Amino acid sequence: MPPSGGKEVRMIDKLNEYAHLVIEVGLNVQKGQEVVINSPVDCAFFARLCARAAYDVGARRVHMQWRDDEISREYWLKAEDTVFDEVLPWDVERNLTLAKKNAAFLNISASNPENLKGVDPKRLERASKANNQANKEYYTMLMNSDFPWCVASIPIPSWAMKVFPGVPEEEAMDKLWNAIFDAVRIENCGGAVDRWRKHCAFLDEKSKKLNELNFKSLHYTNSIGTDLTIELPEGHVWGAGSEFSKTGIEFVANMPTEEVFTAPKRDGVNGKVVATKPLVIDGNIVKDFYMIFKDGKIVKAHAEEGEEYLLNAIKEDENACMLGEVALVQYDSPISNSGILFYNTLFDENASCHLAFGAAYPSCLKGGTELSEEELLAKGINCSTQHCDFMVGSKDLSIIGTTHDGKNIPVFVDGNFAL
Amino acid sequence: MPPSGGKEVRMIDKLNEYAHLVIEVGLNVQKGQEVVINSPVDCAFFARLCARAAYDVGARRVHMQWRDDEISREYWLKAEDTVFDEVLPWDVERNLTLAKKNAAFLNISASNPENLKGVDPKRLERASKANNQANKEYYTMLMNSDFPWCVASIPIPSWAMKVFPGVPEEEAMDKLWNAIFDAVRIENCGGAVDRWRKHCAFLDEKSKKLNELNFKSLHYTNSIGTDLTIELPEGHVWGAGSEFSKTGIEFVANMPTEEVFTAPKRDGVNGKVVATKPLVIDGNIVKDFYMIFKDGKIVKAHAEEGEEYLLNAIKEDENACMLGEVALVQYDSPISNSGILFYNTLFDENASCHLAFGAAYPSCLKGGTELSEEELLAKGINCSTQHCDFMVGSKDLSIIGTTHDGKNIPVFVDGNFAL
Repeated sequence: MPPSGGKEVRMIDKLNEYAHLVIEVGLNVQKGQEVVINSPVDCAFFARLCARAAYDVGARRVHMQWRDDEISREYWLKAEDTVFDEVLPWDVERNLTLAKKNAAFLNISASNPENLKGVDPKRLERASKANNQANKEYYTMLMNSDFPWCVASIPIPSWAMKVFPGVPEEEAMDKLWNAIFDAVRIENCGGAVDRWRKHCAFLDEKSKKLNELNFKSLHYTNSIGTDLTIELPEGHVWGAGSEFSKTGIEFVANMPTEEVFTAPKRDGVNGKVVATKPLVIDGNIVKDFYMIFKDGKIVKAHAEEGEEYLLNAIKEDENACMLGEVALVQYDSPISNSGILFYNTLFDENASCHLAFGAAYPSCLKGGTELSEEELLAKGINCSTQHCDFMVGSKDLSIIGTTHDGKNIPVFVDGNFAL
Repeated sequence: MPPSGGKEVRMIDKLNEYAHLVIEVGLNVQKGQEVVINSPVDCAFFARLCARAAYDVGARRVHMQWRDDEISREYWLKAEDTVFDEVLPWDVERNLTLAKKNAAFLNISASNPENLKGVDPKRLERASKANNQANKEYYTMLMNSDFPWCVASIPIPSWAMKVFPGVPEEEAMDKLWNAIFDAVRIENCGGAVDRWRKHCAFLDEKSKKLNELNFKSLHYTNSIGTDLTIELPEGHVWGAGSEFSKTGIEFVANMPTEEVFTAPKRDGVNGKVVATKPLVIDGNIVKDFYMIFKDGKIVKAHAEEGEEYLLNAIKEDENACMLGEVALVQYDSPISNSGILFYNTLFDENASCHLAFGAAYPSCLKGGTELSEEELLAKGINCSTQHCDFMVGSKDLSIIGTTHDGKNIPVFVDGNFAL
């Protein structure tokens, strides 16, 4: 619910600007294009603004896909056990058909981080496997950026109360609204689209520099136990900010985005990495965890809280235990400086250097989007139905890049870019 | 939104009782059965209670189908013109697959009665035709009671403000909540399930009497111009209250329900009938209308307001211009006595004798659910993708029944049952 009272007029202006930002910069909806909006029912007031913004720029049709935390929780707890191996064929057909029509997919991400606490992890694991298998073609298209997609967020009370515990609901909601508006560059005076264009250009600079350096490997160390070497494959590409769909539409997949990212060499990761923020997996919090890699594979993972959800995620398929993404975010960056732990990867990953186990983005390899799964794997690019980001940035993080001619160049010093 | 403040505790009890009533008496959900809940996003708090109630009685899985007035309106006004001849195949597949699995379908009916005011009627007509054609098998199963289904309502502000104009939104919502609770027999002390069982038994008595009399025809007259003769087909059956699905599950298709109904002989309707309440068709109000019938067909229809929506509905297919339902409701009945015009057929038809143009319920003919469309038509039972109820009851309505041996028996005198 948007804050009410005296702020209402300004709030509706900000919400409208946000909706237009998401539709025009995030998805970059084209005249005649179909649009899919996936939204919690509690975010209907914002989903409506997005739908309207999409029609304003000439969307052919907006398809709504609604969901609800509370009814989901009932489902996971109380549905007959046999349903968790099933997939509803009409859901698969809808996503795939619309993806093939080059629809633009918006996901409004807003959930209680502990919504599925107490749910049998086996149910989540079985459903996830069934779902990923049935939707493989769609997910491959998504990872390949075949169509434009965007994830953006607005607050809901259950989430806001977790981020700002101990304050009244209304205050928590106000604080989370403000934090999100800050993160997505909505101010009081319009102009967010321009600010986003500038921001994307800034991130682009960083990725250009990293592409020129063409590192052979990165070595991560800090004082809490991280000591990890990540080799980068030949032909890797650093990306950032916006990207282009197969049909040539420039879009921004995450709002906010602060990262510069590429794909690691899947069998070239060795050492230990200690997570620096909790993570929400399948509606459960995973906390205080580390992983040990040998020749690319996670050979040990331990979490003080929620370990079973982490282990489930790592074994989702045979390649889920290998890295698919290496992303650099300054410790001294806007979202990080807010000091807020969002319990939502969209924000937390943009406040911290992070890695992801599971699939790589094929666009992180020169010509990668034209390759088959077998060809990608042969070139060291991981393929999986999993893609799970986790945060590893810290105030004292050091990353040393080693070039192909053996030079060691500091990439990160004390948590920030040193290039 | 449920009324808040001091009434909250009692309100949540009433809402829970209502949800259980709808699930246990309306749908009569069985252990292991799938359930579909079709709900506006603004009614999520009640849909959640219904989902929970369904799981409480052992539903295998609850499928949510959400919709939203505001986004619908955007769609009808702004989507590309070509979409209105299209049907989304995944929607068709979902309904048909679940119907064939004998799922129970709940529709939470709550809409702004004028939601589609200003929409091009041609769009509504085209979409309705495309939709009815694609979903024909599903609609036939529904009219045949192959699976249990139920329509029930809760207030939303746009609707409440139309029913109670000129009062503040909160008061209008309170009034509509109270009117609906009265209509569905939710009091302050529990016991609604028992009250419903008794009510269904009472309606059953009336239908038994009418079945014994086995009228050849009914003659409607009143002082505002109605003078209509409706022949009843051989083997017609009056139904009321609950009915049985093909798999033997007793369910109540409408909550509230006050009617006793049967099918007319489709080519045996002659004369003029004047509507006594407005009607909402496709999100538009149709007001002050009459129809003239000749040998079953509507040969003239005129409305002072919204005539085009009425005419569209009547010509939806070749049989939409013939009657499919004759229903008797006392003028002196609870909903009618409330004096409220609900602008929602679920309530208004249960406050008044009504007719429907379009499809008949095959269960209104002995053995009718086993017959094909051709066989039903041959026996005088109308088949159509349309089924539109309209109200004809008035304080001075007279209905004389004529038996097969020529006796004239008053069925209604001064708007009420005379049997």
